[in-house]
Amino acid sequence: MEFDGLFNPSGIAIIGASRDPSKVGSAVLKNIRITYKGDIYPINPFVDQIQGIRAFKSISLVKEPIDLAIIAIPAEKVLDELKKCEKKHIKFAIIISAGFKESGHTGAHLEEDIRNFLNKAKIRVIGPNCLGVINVNLPYNSTFMDPNSKPIEGRTAFISQSGALLSAVVDDATMSKIGFSKIISVGNAVDITEADLLRHLATDEMTDAIAMYIEEVNDGKDFLDALTEASKKKPVIILKGGRFSETSSAVSSHTGSIAGSNRAYELAFRRGGAITVYNIDDLYNFIRDAPSLSINGDEVVILTNAGGAGVVATDSLASVGLKLAKLPEKLSSDLRKSFPKGINSNNPVDILGDATPERYREALSMLLRVNKPIIAIFAPQEMAMPIETAKGIIEAHNSHPEIPLLPVFMGGASVEKGEKLLLENKLPCYRYPNEAVDVVKGLVFHKRFIEPKYTQSNRVKIKVSKLKSQENLFGLHAKEIFDKLGIRTVKGVKFKDQKELRAASGVIGFPCVMKIGSDSISHKGEVGGILTGIKDLQQLEREFEDMSKKMRTESIKVPYYELYEDANKYSKDSYEIILGGHRDEKFGPIVGLGIGGEYVKIINEMRFALSPVSDYDIEKIKESKAGKIVKALCKETVLNEIVTYLIKIAKLMDENPWIKDIDINPLLVSENGAIAVDFKIYS
Amino acid sequence: MEFDGLFNPSGIAIIGASRDPSKVGSAVLKNIRITYKGDIYPINPFVDQIQGIRAFKSISLVKEPIDLAIIAIPAEKVLDELKKCEKKHIKFAIIISAGFKESGHTGAHLEEDIRNFLNKAKIRVIGPNCLGVINVNLPYNSTFMDPNSKPIEGRTAFISQSGALLSAVVDDATMSKIGFSKIISVGNAVDITEADLLRHLATDEMTDAIAMYIEEVNDGKDFLDALTEASKKKPVIILKGGRFSETSSAVSSHTGSIAGSNRAYELAFRRGGAITVYNIDDLYNFIRDAPSLSINGDEVVILTNAGGAGVVATDSLASVGLKLAKLPEKLSSDLRKSFPKGINSNNPVDILGDATPERYREALSMLLRVNKPIIAIFAPQEMAMPIETAKGIIEAHNSHPEIPLLPVFMGGASVEKGEKLLLENKLPCYRYPNEAVDVVKGLVFHKRFIEPKYTQSNRVKIKVSKLKSQENLFGLHAKEIFDKLGIRTVKGVKFKDQKELRAASGVIGFPCVMKIGSDSISHKGEVGGILTGIKDLQQLEREFEDMSKKMRTESIKVPYYELYEDANKYSKDSYEIILGGHRDEKFGPIVGLGIGGEYVKIINEMRFALSPVSDYDIEKIKESKAGKIVKALCKETVLNEIVTYLIKIAKLMDENPWIKDIDINPLLVSENGAIAVDFKIYS
Repeated sequence: MEFDGLFNPSGIAIIGASRDPSKVGSAVLKNIRITYKGDIYPINPFVDQIQGIRAFKSISLVKEPIDLAIIAIPAEKVLDELKKCEKKHIKFAIIISAGFKESGHTGAHLEEDIRNFLNKAKIRVIGPNCLGVINVNLPYNSTFMDPNSKPIEGRTAFISQSGALLSAVVDDATMSKIGFSKIISVGNAVDITEADLLRHLATDEMTDAIAMYIEEVNDGKDFLDALTEASKKKPVIILKGGRFSETSSAVSSHTGSIAGSNRAYELAFRRGGAITVYNIDDLYNFIRDAPSLSINGDEVVILTNAGGAGVVATDSLASVGLKLAKLPEKLSSDLRKSFPKGINSNNPVDILGDATPERYREALSMLLRVNKPIIAIFAPQEMAMPIETAKGIIEAHNSHPEIPLLPVFMGGASVEKGEKLLLENKLPCYRYPNEAVDVVKGLVFHKRFIEPKYTQSNRVKIKVSKLKSQENLFGLHAKEIFDKLGIRTVKGVKFKDQKELRAASGVIGFPCVMKIGSDSISHKGEVGGILTGIKDLQQLEREFEDMSKKMRTESIKVPYYELYEDANKYSKDSYEIILGGHRDEKFGPIVGLGIGGEYVKIINEMRFALSPVSDYDIEKIKESKAGKIVKALCKETVLNEIVTYLIKIAKLMDENPWIKDIDINPLLVSENGAIAVDFKIYS
Repeated sequence: MEFDGLFNPSGIAIIGASRDPSKVGSAVLKNIRITYKGDIYPINPFVDQIQGIRAFKSISLVKEPIDLAIIAIPAEKVLDELKKCEKKHIKFAIIISAGFKESGHTGAHLEEDIRNFLNKAKIRVIGPNCLGVINVNLPYNSTFMDPNSKPIEGRTAFISQSGALLSAVVDDATMSKIGFSKIISVGNAVDITEADLLRHLATDEMTDAIAMYIEEVNDGKDFLDALTEASKKKPVIILKGGRFSETSSAVSSHTGSIAGSNRAYELAFRRGGAITVYNIDDLYNFIRDAPSLSINGDEVVILTNAGGAGVVATDSLASVGLKLAKLPEKLSSDLRKSFPKGINSNNPVDILGDATPERYREALSMLLRVNKPIIAIFAPQEMAMPIETAKGIIEAHNSHPEIPLLPVFMGGASVEKGEKLLLENKLPCYRYPNEAVDVVKGLVFHKRFIEPKYTQSNRVKIKVSKLKSQENLFGLHAKEIFDKLGIRTVKGVKFKDQKELRAASGVIGFPCVMKIGSDSISHKGEVGGILTGIKDLQQLEREFEDMSKKMRTESIKVPYYELYEDANKYSKDSYEIILGGHRDEKFGPIVGLGIGGEYVKIINEMRFALSPVSDYDIEKIKESKAGKIVKALCKETVLNEIVTYLIKIAKLMDENPWIKDIDINPLLVSENGAIAVDFKIYS
């Protein structure tokens, strides 16, 4: 295995091991010492023994082979030590030392030097500026976390870009008896990235789910590839920090500024099948339960002994888009026969406040027939019997362990022991219904992800050619490209003088629109370079005279003019849509559809998809407001046509990395189809 | 005090006290016995002594005066006992027994009988079908909750419509050492309502905040009055169950169907100054901290020892619309002078992973100069010193106890003791930044509520007359009312025959629109009763001939016809807006503004306000999408005009309870103003 020396090292050296308990090198050694069963080599030029272990003056002096070095020394000394490690054929180093990129100019240089060295070296590195790595399975703990905080073994791996957040989450999880397989603080990721780790953990047999805290990724495409690969094997849960870091730019009809880079992250996480959470708290239940729950479909059965709790649970389901499963009439009637009058035999099934553990067991055994996830709520009432109720639930679960069963034991001391029993028996247990619902929602999304529709659409099979890299293309130059793609645009031709004008007007007809031809002026109207509603040849000739005179007077270089049919002839009973593409610097092309016209600037609402567009994206785009408007006011075939345009734009941008943005605004849609009236390609 | 006998009773009788430990009457007696210091009178016809206390065969046999009776006997026997209580001048009864309205027809009758009796009786009643009341301050506990679950004293009162939810929340809170002043399960609220309790608790000196779980209120206006009154004195936090109970009706341009009854609850809670929460978990921090925190303004200072935690906290702030306070340059420079290189001296202030307790204390004492709420995050790093850090924070707090300080101690075992110390010192403490942020957000909203703009607007001083109750009013009949209100509508006149037609067309001019006059046909177009774009008198006369013939043939009764100016003349450069009113059965008139035209059916998005419209509502409506569109595409004066229309519609509906719905669709808006083209008043 590629990362074997990192996670299962033979021999660990601690470069910077220290006797001073206030030093990081002391805490690291202590953690290694109390967790790691193999040979430990503290490295310190000044002492012979640290914490009762023989120390070496230099890593070069160690004779035995070593797989892993932990480096905790001042930043400027790290590279030298790394070189010594390389020489000694050490396979991995974890650089805990801070003082690199994160601390400014000098540090960035030091980091760059390390990167250059690593490009040619064999040694692989985690960090710098990280908390370290814990392999709970082995175990070893190379961090400088409080040694009293001892992570317990579980089946979720945790990767974090924030050391402090990592230690807080691990500390808290440990107190709640939530365990981990591997815990990795990636720091500045000068060498081994989140993507590398995702790939490794995807195949790690001790890991059934992966939780991540991410603020930024360096190579978006590589991350997305690794995420997609990992998500196909196990759930990946991501908390993204810095979601609101962008100052939201002023209103704009420009696709790029509506999209924003956080949108790209969101799209990428969805595309890669990640379960996105928004708070640290939300991570917990997934860390605990994602490895053991496998959920299909979006319908849920709720069992409760309290009406109010059923109400709250139903609210939660609806708020995340899940559904109450409809129970078969036979089942409802069986429930009514088996239980006292007053129960609710429909979903949510209410077996009343005096429900005995036996009633829970029996109701569950009947509801398991539905073969859908069951949220079983127990609220302490009257003579609450939490332990016996938990036993009844465990028994029912054991009869059908393949059906997800999510107990919710509401309350504190009255239910605590039942909760404990459930957890001991590898069942989840939630305090409140919404927690169970959030877990179901995330896992439903993940499960669906293996369906092919989440990856790519085969709907449009077109070959888009690679164009030579060029400057902005406006007007007819852009039209040429859209014509080739099969995106319908208004008729238009070039002309240069009065003579050509006459021929051009013969092609276009009246009314028509005259524009200056220019790939450098994006808003031609602002310089007086657009005239609409020209009625006849006489007017056209006169206006051309005026416009070309104005351009000359104002020294605006106009290599040619353009004549278009007037879109007004399409505008009756038609609606304005905006269609666009934007190249995110991390994740590549994003295409979007929005409500156009004057509204776009105000509503500022587009639905986006990452390229290549998937069938799932198409579904979502069709369900967007703009999609619904097109479907309702035109025809579904028109909507399909527009979606095809989006896919084509995505492919065009994929093939041509020089294209940074594409705006079609407006695209006029009516019953008769869609036609692009104004279009720009930005390089 | 009105409810003195309920909360501080002299003598409590338990009617239905039982020796059988499986009976509710046994648990209630037990809870009373272990909590209440006054005289206890178990009532049971068959025994002389229960749980070591002398029992009476009947309440009538007790000589001593009694303030409160707890009734836990079968539903059908309750009324008789209630009558005996009344006769004995018992002031209050808590009917725990179930089997009333909630259990079907027979129960509803029993409840009705009790209601009728109470109308004339002096005794006041909590319940039936409730868990009971706990006055933690006195104390007494009249519930049948597990006697081991002993609520501790705090300064928040809790009112719940679900007994199970109440017991779960109290149980859980108790385990987390979160206390209560009063705990009340209201059940079916046959007599004493949530509103009555709100009014009482608003003046209760032992209560500084009120938390509620509500599924439905019977008298919306009374509830809103009580809520408003209470919110002016202390924070009221509401969790509403059944938010998603309505099957969302099909798309519609009808205000009423867009509004929905849950929207009315939301509007009412906001109007009443309540802090709305959406999950049970969210209730906790408010129950604990709402009594002690008083927060002004929407700017927050964040102090952290971990960059990642600062990032996450900033995300949370932004996600709820709060802001990072900008620190004065002098303060930032002082921070840089006082602390090591590498700190972030802007908000969020990062004092680095090695921050000592002393550094926390010092940084806080400097940040307190900003006089804004401070969220102080401590993440366990290296040599975490949670207790000392907590002490530093407490010290800083004590120097300025008036400035809200919200510590967040991230992690588990490593920070637990610090957390405990903070809580003991009456400071809050949160596990993660988002929890602190949610509390700040809620309290900011509550604090603002005392500003007059939250209650009513004095912007429009109009007198709206009370019209006589009538049927639907469409067309000119509705126009008449809007004309009186000063809502501009298209010109229109009545006519009956060819002779009157000629005069009418002289008033209206061409092009014009002809409609059948009818208050029973709401969609006149569907029966061929509308014709637009009539160009001249000749065409008009011909079309009238045709239309009246068609109506006669199809036996559609048309008492008169209507002639309007054709709105097309306004429609160039104008936009369609929808304006409407809907009478919610609980909370009265709701008015709303939305994007009109074909879009309304799809976007289905209106911004609503409860009548009477407040200045705060006006702000919100102006910031809605429709508001922004009007402001951007027309002028702000036009938007103000429209808002005035909304206020007028609200007043009209206030004065005229027979009006159920008002739809103005479309209202054409342009730079020149707004004009209503189609308008309907439904009774």
